[in-house]
Amino acid sequence: MTFKYNNVYLNETSTVAGRLESEGPLSTKYDKVYKDFYMGTKTWEQAEIKMITECVDILLNKSDKKKEDINAFISGDLLNQIAASSYAASTLKIPYIGIYSACATSTLGLILGSNMIEGKMMNNVVVNVSSHNNASEKQFRYPVEYGGPKRATTTFTTTGAASALLSYNKSGIKIESGTLGTVIDSGIKDAYQMGAVMAIAACDTISKHLKETKRTIDYYDLVLTGDLGIYGKKILKEALEKEYGMNTNNVDDAACIIYNIEEQSVYSGGSGPACLPLVAYSYIIEEMKKGNLNRVLLVATGALMNTNLVNQHLTIPSIAHAISLEVLI
Amino acid sequence: MTFKYNNVYLNETSTVAGRLESEGPLSTKYDKVYKDFYMGTKTWEQAEIKMITECVDILLNKSDKKKEDINAFISGDLLNQIAASSYAASTLKIPYIGIYSACATSTLGLILGSNMIEGKMMNNVVVNVSSHNNASEKQFRYPVEYGGPKRATTTFTTTGAASALLSYNKSGIKIESGTLGTVIDSGIKDAYQMGAVMAIAACDTISKHLKETKRTIDYYDLVLTGDLGIYGKKILKEALEKEYGMNTNNVDDAACIIYNIEEQSVYSGGSGPACLPLVAYSYIIEEMKKGNLNRVLLVATGALMNTNLVNQHLTIPSIAHAISLEVLI
Repeated sequence: MTFKYNNVYLNETSTVAGRLESEGPLSTKYDKVYKDFYMGTKTWEQAEIKMITECVDILLNKSDKKKEDINAFISGDLLNQIAASSYAASTLKIPYIGIYSACATSTLGLILGSNMIEGKMMNNVVVNVSSHNNASEKQFRYPVEYGGPKRATTTFTTTGAASALLSYNKSGIKIESGTLGTVIDSGIKDAYQMGAVMAIAACDTISKHLKETKRTIDYYDLVLTGDLGIYGKKILKEALEKEYGMNTNNVDDAACIIYNIEEQSVYSGGSGPACLPLVAYSYIIEEMKKGNLNRVLLVATGALMNTNLVNQHLTIPSIAHAISLEVLI
Repeated sequence: MTFKYNNVYLNETSTVAGRLESEGPLSTKYDKVYKDFYMGTKTWEQAEIKMITECVDILLNKSDKKKEDINAFISGDLLNQIAASSYAASTLKIPYIGIYSACATSTLGLILGSNMIEGKMMNNVVVNVSSHNNASEKQFRYPVEYGGPKRATTTFTTTGAASALLSYNKSGIKIESGTLGTVIDSGIKDAYQMGAVMAIAACDTISKHLKETKRTIDYYDLVLTGDLGIYGKKILKEALEKEYGMNTNNVDDAACIIYNIEEQSVYSGGSGPACLPLVAYSYIIEEMKKGNLNRVLLVATGALMNTNLVNQHLTIPSIAHAISLEVLI
């Protein structure tokens, strides 16, 4: 389902990133980076909570808004029970909407925030996501210390938090429309094929978005998915080209941008809810402000995986939500 | 933050319940009950997924709506990654908004749905929650087969799914307002004191709701919290009476209504996201339709617990969201 917005703007963004992200191609573009995974706390989970509260503080410091001005803190992450978001919300004291859409959480949050601003139910909304590589590894896969070998199709969960301030106050970047995704059964049972799982959902949401807005893909200067990785991106491009006859020169994937895949040991690229917005809220927004990109479609993709259900041999569902950003001329 | 609604109605509700719920005082009031925990599936998790899809099917069958008419399926549950909701969404094929607010998820969903209908962003929304006792026990506590003794303050996770259809189409029950909660640090580290953890959040949200709507508590025929249990309810009532000078004769808790606490082995009462709406969407709605209750404030309460962070000795945050229902006269 696609929503059209006339009164929603992206006022400000902020990013906090971890070690591997700070060693990647966007190293200079983040607001804050940490070189170790504990970030001055005792555990990886507490480090993730800290990244969120710092990221929101940086966001509000960049803007003219205080915590009391914010109507809702919309946030989600990969920890069970989205615990990083909830514990951060406990510190922030802003009315809290906890959401979960795996690595598609960022654009789900932007859609919810935009819907409530466009509908005049809220004035100022902070949308946040986070992920932490080690906290995620130990929860979804194996103890980090185990150091098991991985397949090339594995993705590497990014460490970072990314926040956005939305409001009806005009800024240089308008949130123009959003497409809420539908869950797709990928038919895949292999938890190390996340790119393939999510490529199907990305294809579904992109094609619905273009159909419902009566656009062709070349309307956008960039269609940025995240986080498919090098193999998932290939699958998506082939699907868009062969099934829909699209030219996909303007399609790229955040998982392939955030790291130097050839040099850093990140398998097929980045993943985690923070992956796409770490790229979008730093590099892409900068390019939009410079005038190098005018219309960008962000398509965050999520594999709605649960370890119990993977072990029960169920197929993995996936979803993608899209947000269209436009530079105001 | 409190939202006032002028154009949102509760059109229909549905409930699917498990064994202990079907043996409780509301046994005749559920749309469907299961006497065993597998419900014809191979696992408890898959049983929970089945309850959701059946509950939504019952809901739509009761109404004149088809799946294609529904703009969004808003759902959350207790499984890690809200997996029951996501797998059900994969079958339902309705645009999906995954949310998490522990046992406060039901009213968070009602607020989000109501905000988007009031703001004219959506026409028809299905809001759902579920929980499954055994799936929840094995995930948060110990293997069910272990059969460890428990303390009296423990609550018993309800097994069930509960769905609501909201729209701008007038019906007998109006969604009049909603208060989005703020996360409260309970200061409590003991995961077997959930009633105490959540009573603090319930008190905060009820007092904010009354202040922001300029009402006194006797405006409501019933203030129904859930799921505090017998000890948490006592704490809430004392706090409202002593700190705010309220008369709490009209305050009750769904955890204390759903079971015969004296006779069923459920410790201090029910819990889980399904607890409050199983009571509200069956018994309470029936009483409203009969004219026995005209104004009801539903206050779902959630302990935003995560086993890793409990083991790291962090205090447990809590939240409560309130929804005001009124019979149209």
